[in-house]
Amino acid sequence: MLERASTMRIKPAVRWWWWTGDAVRGVTQCPRNAQGKRRGAGRTFASTIGACLTATPAAVPLSWHPSCFTFTSATCSGTWWISYRTPPHPLCLPGIARELPAERNRAPLAQAHAELPNDALPRFHLEKAVSHESLVIGAIENAFKRMDEQIERERMTRLVAGGCCALAVVYLLGKVYVANAGDSRAIIIRNGEIIPMSREFTPETERQRLQFLGFLRPELLGNEFTHLEFPRRIQHKELGKKMLYRDQNMNGWAYKRIEEDDLKFPLIYGEGKKARVMATIGVTRGLGDHDLKVYNSNIHIKPFLSCVPEVRVYDLTQYEHCPDDVLVLGTDGLWDVTNDREVADVVTEVLMGYEPNDPCRYTMAAYELVVRSRGVLKERGWRLANDKLGSGDDISVFVIPLGGPGNYT
Amino acid sequence: MLERASTMRIKPAVRWWWWTGDAVRGVTQCPRNAQGKRRGAGRTFASTIGACLTATPAAVPLSWHPSCFTFTSATCSGTWWISYRTPPHPLCLPGIARELPAERNRAPLAQAHAELPNDALPRFHLEKAVSHESLVIGAIENAFKRMDEQIERERMTRLVAGGCCALAVVYLLGKVYVANAGDSRAIIIRNGEIIPMSREFTPETERQRLQFLGFLRPELLGNEFTHLEFPRRIQHKELGKKMLYRDQNMNGWAYKRIEEDDLKFPLIYGEGKKARVMATIGVTRGLGDHDLKVYNSNIHIKPFLSCVPEVRVYDLTQYEHCPDDVLVLGTDGLWDVTNDREVADVVTEVLMGYEPNDPCRYTMAAYELVVRSRGVLKERGWRLANDKLGSGDDISVFVIPLGGPGNYT
Repeated sequence: MLERASTMRIKPAVRWWWWTGDAVRGVTQCPRNAQGKRRGAGRTFASTIGACLTATPAAVPLSWHPSCFTFTSATCSGTWWISYRTPPHPLCLPGIARELPAERNRAPLAQAHAELPNDALPRFHLEKAVSHESLVIGAIENAFKRMDEQIERERMTRLVAGGCCALAVVYLLGKVYVANAGDSRAIIIRNGEIIPMSREFTPETERQRLQFLGFLRPELLGNEFTHLEFPRRIQHKELGKKMLYRDQNMNGWAYKRIEEDDLKFPLIYGEGKKARVMATIGVTRGLGDHDLKVYNSNIHIKPFLSCVPEVRVYDLTQYEHCPDDVLVLGTDGLWDVTNDREVADVVTEVLMGYEPNDPCRYTMAAYELVVRSRGVLKERGWRLANDKLGSGDDISVFVIPLGGPGNYT
Repeated sequence: MLERASTMRIKPAVRWWWWTGDAVRGVTQCPRNAQGKRRGAGRTFASTIGACLTATPAAVPLSWHPSCFTFTSATCSGTWWISYRTPPHPLCLPGIARELPAERNRAPLAQAHAELPNDALPRFHLEKAVSHESLVIGAIENAFKRMDEQIERERMTRLVAGGCCALAVVYLLGKVYVANAGDSRAIIIRNGEIIPMSREFTPETERQRLQFLGFLRPELLGNEFTHLEFPRRIQHKELGKKMLYRDQNMNGWAYKRIEEDDLKFPLIYGEGKKARVMATIGVTRGLGDHDLKVYNSNIHIKPFLSCVPEVRVYDLTQYEHCPDDVLVLGTDGLWDVTNDREVADVVTEVLMGYEPNDPCRYTMAAYELVVRSRGVLKERGWRLANDKLGSGDDISVFVIPLGGPGNYT
């Protein structure tokens, strides 16, 4: 059973679950080289107020811990109205009184409207419905942005460079919100079925967004990169020939005549784990990395990275969950060597070995996932059960029970 | 049974199906006002070489018919290699010999590579796999772009303004490619099950793309519009208060303090059928509209419209289709008043009334869909069976059989 150590009522009708670090069953394996030496300092957060943050190594100094709280408090402030105001919640909140500025800079359309009495403006009365759920999503999105700004401010004072992916979970009013910015992944395993709760953001999955930016703001590419993608590098002697290409609008490939500009290095290059943005970074969303540049150049990577997560929502009240139904969060170190089905099978196998109310069972499932993805040290390095190489990246795993004894009702 | 009037072998192993206008069972109802007068000249294309193009009214003069052939011939040229070259097809084609230009403009990275012998550059050897399917998709995407360019060139010589949505189907080597740019829609009805083959592109579904463009290129908004979205228009007296908003990165809503710039008219405004880009157009992809401007201004709409379709692929060989399995294409005039399930029910009901090999059955299904969506003229205007208003937009419908007698093998 999940040890929900304390249940805090911030306001009537708003209940936050506190998950302690132990209760969320997070297990982390730091990355290491073939000789077993730890390569970096993989760290895992289990923040309070129902939010868990797992992060890739080097990127996540312990000094960021306070930022976790910033993140969750931002979420909190954004959702205050959910409980307190019955629908419709206010679209507009009172703010600091400001002296109205002079009219000279106002757009003609706005001016024309301002001259009319209110009741003559039907467009003012059109109000878009805003769901409670979308307020929580907006609060989480803004929390990531604020976190990123805080990292930018503090990177000098705390001497912290680098960046990290972020995968966060918020539980609120019967719904689980999974927010992902990076190449970590979350799945729900429910009655053996796998429900994806995130998708990875990599140079390949975000190719069109990055190409669109490079196309509209070519100055961000320096004079080194082209926003077009080709199936391979082009040689100078191929000028004038026709080559397959893709631009920001295309999902398919078509031919174009090779021009001088096409000889530049592609903005996106490489495949799978080797795909890179401007030959530098293999992930396209996350926090930090404000000073990252292309090697030996003054070209900044940050404009191409987004700190905004994609938030997916799972309604816990729509299904009666059993003690074996879990949410699994893992960094790419897990998913590089273990697919969804294998993760589900390991979790099911481990949970079956324990009583449903044994609090160790989720920790042991997370532990087993980490150990299996790391492999065993042999003569030829760390090897998995199938003799393939074990994961060389950091491996952080959470296994969070969704039901069973002590459920959410 | 479908009258596939002729089967043309352009090259050995490449078989194109010719669908005649009759064979694709296209039925069009021109838009009309409540008195039954036709409002515009809704026209429907059934182009050769397996491509069907339905278009919204006013937008599609008959003079565009030749463009249809351009569209399909572009597809043809793009897929030539599919049959002729066994995999791997060439990434690079021979082109017109060009004198190599001076090196002075070349990027440093490219220069460095050019100085090395070929076999010292492993990156030149990395080749991305390009599937046959993605070549067809790329050819269709480029065909739409070329069509749009042709319309731009010919709008002066042929005195044709305006624009249209485009929904096209290409059948090639056992696969159906459905390309959509606009708010038409295609579904497959297979054994009663509905398979969506397109999604609509409207100011609401493409909000983030449009906002991203407005954010990066604010000059495109004149001084009239803001790229931010608010749930309602803001009044001048609300300056300094906090209002819910969404920017190009957000799916949820959060609060921001209202500033002077937020008083401008929103780039995207309105909901559902009333949503508009810059208070002007209700659809965000299509062909033409090169001269469209915001009313009484010099602000162009075209930069926000995309002519690039989304292409979905359906593999006909993966399933044995019966004579009742069909692909239905319809303009928004159909879908505004009839949902997917209702369309499937009407098609099934009509088809059951005819022998499986009766060539009329598909035409009658399309006819029935158009008539039901138009409604019946009553005292209070055109009314549907449920007494709601009939569709006021143009209604074009194709019902294309996928199997049965005379199937594709």
